[in-house]
Amino acid sequence: MNDSMDPRAVRSREAMLVAARDLLQREGPGAVTHQRVAQHAGVGRATVYRHWPDAEQLLLETLNGVVMPFFRDPVTPVRPWLRSQLLTLADEMALPAVAAVALTLMQGALWEPHIATRRDALVATLTDQLRPVLQLAVSTGELDTACDAQDAAALLIGPILFRTTMQTDKVTAPLIDYLLSSLGTWHLADDV
Amino acid sequence: MNDSMDPRAVRSREAMLVAARDLLQREGPGAVTHQRVAQHAGVGRATVYRHWPDAEQLLLETLNGVVMPFFRDPVTPVRPWLRSQLLTLADEMALPAVAAVALTLMQGALWEPHIATRRDALVATLTDQLRPVLQLAVSTGELDTACDAQDAAALLIGPILFRTTMQTDKVTAPLIDYLLSSLGTWHLADDV
Repeated sequence: MNDSMDPRAVRSREAMLVAARDLLQREGPGAVTHQRVAQHAGVGRATVYRHWPDAEQLLLETLNGVVMPFFRDPVTPVRPWLRSQLLTLADEMALPAVAAVALTLMQGALWEPHIATRRDALVATLTDQLRPVLQLAVSTGELDTACDAQDAAALLIGPILFRTTMQTDKVTAPLIDYLLSSLGTWHLADDV
Repeated sequence: MNDSMDPRAVRSREAMLVAARDLLQREGPGAVTHQRVAQHAGVGRATVYRHWPDAEQLLLETLNGVVMPFFRDPVTPVRPWLRSQLLTLADEMALPAVAAVALTLMQGALWEPHIATRRDALVATLTDQLRPVLQLAVSTGELDTACDAQDAAALLIGPILFRTTMQTDKVTAPLIDYLLSSLGTWHLADDV
């Protein structure tokens, strides 16, 4: 975009994305239209069209709001570190904006190839971030497991997603302990 | 509905629901409109309106297609029985029609109170069906656990949902074994 360096254009683009995410969170993906975003951000509809010529691009960029800074830079002992990562993930997933983006990504991916690409990238990132976590826990003797990173992602994140979006209830400390135990046999730091 | 006993009306209603589910599966919930369903089922638009005066009712009834005959009438030993139930659930979730309904239910519930009510009923049913399964396994000494039925639902179904809809990959036998182990300590049938 040739006006990408203009600070005014940058601010206006940011305002449109804030408006789009707000609409998504409060009314769902159907509300993320050029007209509603323009009204909500206080810009002309042509401005929204200029940045995102079609509705799918607009929704896709709105979904970009989710960053996934989870499972990075693990430390030993791994178990308490991983527990705190999972509690943070649970807190994030409980936020309406994050749940809205996650479920729109999951559901939209069934019919929109571009959304499926985005979902696949997110899943690949999570798996890539979990791999060194498992390796560290196994290499230090803290965890006995044959579980791979893909299974670990399903075992750790699946129940948190189910608890927050299907059961719409809190992720409790005992549930987190069940998640950790599902990976394999942990040895207390003292035993290592 | 006063024409509910007329076999022709029953057939026409069924044809509209089949058309609606087909549209949902192939194009997403946005395609489940009175006009598209009428075209697809070969009936007049007024007929669709007569059965479902608004679009939300139409979508809601379309989502009814999911039955949940899982976790019913457990037998001992519980572990192999539960494993086969989970494999069947995984096969169901891998069907595009079931994934479409499940994700539309999860996502739509964020913004539509009636869909949220439907989702809550589904979750409550699953929990109620898992409760006697856990009780049987614990009472016969096959399973040591303090896990309640709500946690068990999240631990067993969450990873299957994540694997089929986020990772879009197969639920493998080892993953099912991790799920079962996450509930607690199982004793072999011989030990009981």
